[in-house]
Amino acid sequence: MSAAVQADAAAESLPLAGLTVVDLTRVLAGPVCTQMLADLGARVIKVEQPGRGDDARAVGPFIDGVSAYFLSVNRNKESIALDLKDEGDRAIFERLLERADVLIENYRPGTMEKLGYGWDLLHARFPQLVFTSVSGFGQTGPYSGFPAYDMVVQAMSGMMSVTGPEGGGPCRVGVSIGDLGAGLYAVIGTQSALMQRARTGRGSRVDVSMLDCQVALLENAVARYGAEGRVPGALGSRHPAMAPFDVFRAQDGWFVIAVGSDAAFGTLCTLLDIRALASDERFATGRARVTHHAPLKALLEERLASHPRAHWLQLLGDHGIPCGEYQTVAEVVQHPQVAARGMLTQVRTPAGTSLQVAGNPLRTGATHLVRRDPPALDADRESILRDIAAP
Amino acid sequence: MSAAVQADAAAESLPLAGLTVVDLTRVLAGPVCTQMLADLGARVIKVEQPGRGDDARAVGPFIDGVSAYFLSVNRNKESIALDLKDEGDRAIFERLLERADVLIENYRPGTMEKLGYGWDLLHARFPQLVFTSVSGFGQTGPYSGFPAYDMVVQAMSGMMSVTGPEGGGPCRVGVSIGDLGAGLYAVIGTQSALMQRARTGRGSRVDVSMLDCQVALLENAVARYGAEGRVPGALGSRHPAMAPFDVFRAQDGWFVIAVGSDAAFGTLCTLLDIRALASDERFATGRARVTHHAPLKALLEERLASHPRAHWLQLLGDHGIPCGEYQTVAEVVQHPQVAARGMLTQVRTPAGTSLQVAGNPLRTGATHLVRRDPPALDADRESILRDIAAP
Repeated sequence: MSAAVQADAAAESLPLAGLTVVDLTRVLAGPVCTQMLADLGARVIKVEQPGRGDDARAVGPFIDGVSAYFLSVNRNKESIALDLKDEGDRAIFERLLERADVLIENYRPGTMEKLGYGWDLLHARFPQLVFTSVSGFGQTGPYSGFPAYDMVVQAMSGMMSVTGPEGGGPCRVGVSIGDLGAGLYAVIGTQSALMQRARTGRGSRVDVSMLDCQVALLENAVARYGAEGRVPGALGSRHPAMAPFDVFRAQDGWFVIAVGSDAAFGTLCTLLDIRALASDERFATGRARVTHHAPLKALLEERLASHPRAHWLQLLGDHGIPCGEYQTVAEVVQHPQVAARGMLTQVRTPAGTSLQVAGNPLRTGATHLVRRDPPALDADRESILRDIAAP
Repeated sequence: MSAAVQADAAAESLPLAGLTVVDLTRVLAGPVCTQMLADLGARVIKVEQPGRGDDARAVGPFIDGVSAYFLSVNRNKESIALDLKDEGDRAIFERLLERADVLIENYRPGTMEKLGYGWDLLHARFPQLVFTSVSGFGQTGPYSGFPAYDMVVQAMSGMMSVTGPEGGGPCRVGVSIGDLGAGLYAVIGTQSALMQRARTGRGSRVDVSMLDCQVALLENAVARYGAEGRVPGALGSRHPAMAPFDVFRAQDGWFVIAVGSDAAFGTLCTLLDIRALASDERFATGRARVTHHAPLKALLEERLASHPRAHWLQLLGDHGIPCGEYQTVAEVVQHPQVAARGMLTQVRTPAGTSLQVAGNPLRTGATHLVRRDPPALDADRESILRDIAAP
């Protein structure tokens, strides 16, 4: 058995086995969505521009000349290069759609229509096809046609306004949450459309807007603003409604203490041997502690400076107070819990060099996560063409 | 027709119509997951602790004495109060499970086993049931039994280490991305288990770890670290690999310019009438611009200070350069695109006061989003008991 045949056999036991996705997406939001579907067992056929392929292939850093950015979000996919303005390639694309369950794209709204693949035409010709689009602002509304990147929707949505130090300027979330959030919602929308199709026999349109998804993730800030009329701002590392619920400095580094109740605060004061704080009026209730969070933090850090964080983590953890070490990416990839969960995996470049990447948080024990390494551009042309030639 | 009957009729056309979810979740990660399933048409029966209910009911701010935190993530659900240590209530709970497609909980690992509802027992008795658990560290591994809040997994995962100003200390993402991320992955896992069940007839176990989900969202930082060996750090509002790709100050406020190519940089320089920059060696390539991002930002802001941001947004937008205004939460809820997309909705407290909350980014035009307002504790006991009494 070849490696590819073995991989396909393993895919049979995965949740989305048997589904075929035609994937026109590029860069991040779309590829995150289709990688999740691929990890879960769908066959994902990545259709790329001849010559250059997915724009992400050009984003550094590179390993063996291959983009690490690309390698991180394109495992378990096949690749074929097609020019959707060429007649022969359009015929191939349409044969793929005939056999597909889902088409996903993240062009700017209007592009698919210009290519002659708008929803109305596609739905008439392939009534079972689910058609998912991810765009900056969605397929409707006055901003629909505008281009957007992650940075733009992080700024417009208010996400930057609630992130960063108190009183500081705009601050980006350190991951591309504008893209990643939209990618995850697009998976949910696509799966639910497939479940609906199982009942109705008909595909439907999933229209995901990156800006909408950021507003959805800001749910608590929106609700607080609605209830109080005060504009939510950035608070550094502390929690808006609980204290002490923040990052604190111990003798040798930062760690988190997350106290969610008066009882837990009492326990904390006892454990730190600063019982006087528990009866201090400024810290008597959750609301009072939030108001006086700054002096409380100073008093706690004065005490915490006496021991390394491992000491405090052990002591607090043993007494059920949620806490945890602040870690860099270099530390988290070596953390025993991350290792025990198998949350990291290896993908290989076409030249065979391995790169450690984040795995999928949804796993079944019996299956291999990486059935296929991220493809070189057009790597699967031959087998894909053979498939669609079959009756 | 009563409002509830109308709501149930509307639900028929939704993607997850016909599915029943028994929901033991509390606070945020779990309720976000079950609200998504409810918005998509599933019947979600929220099982709460008698007396106090979901812990989130006690988290402020309050409107009519009802938690805005709770109202934001519990629409479209029914509520029944059950004591899972009481024999009579356990019998009711088990009758609910007999009729359910999914059970979702976010207790600390081991709790369900102590209640006599561990996976092995449940799977033996209800083989079709999908059982989804969301926990801080997952059901396995050395940290499995530890408590965790959003803040803890943001710190441990490295999320805080890549967020905030360059060279600053730990900085939290301003939304509870630890909870929200896990909630979205839990929806994906649950839906994929339901799709698998449609093929195999058997339910399966979905084990979602908040820490795993944060590592998944850090995918690009993990891949960059793997490729370069340099520990990714926080960069304020700028992009790690492109420039100018940041927030800039205009005469009257901040806005984003996102330049993804040399050609776009040339266009930008022409539009800003600072063509000399395009031929400056420091800014000749993407890599060079990233290296010299600080002087580049200073030079751009010098020019941008001459006009208000509306001027620049119009000019850049007209020439296809991705850009957007930095907004607060107060501004985004009034934005015309957010309004056009219907991304905000109203929920009512039991006393009838409305609160504006974030809607669902997955919508079908034909259906009402809020079929049911967030329930009072135990509000649906009578109708739920009637249902399970029916043969």
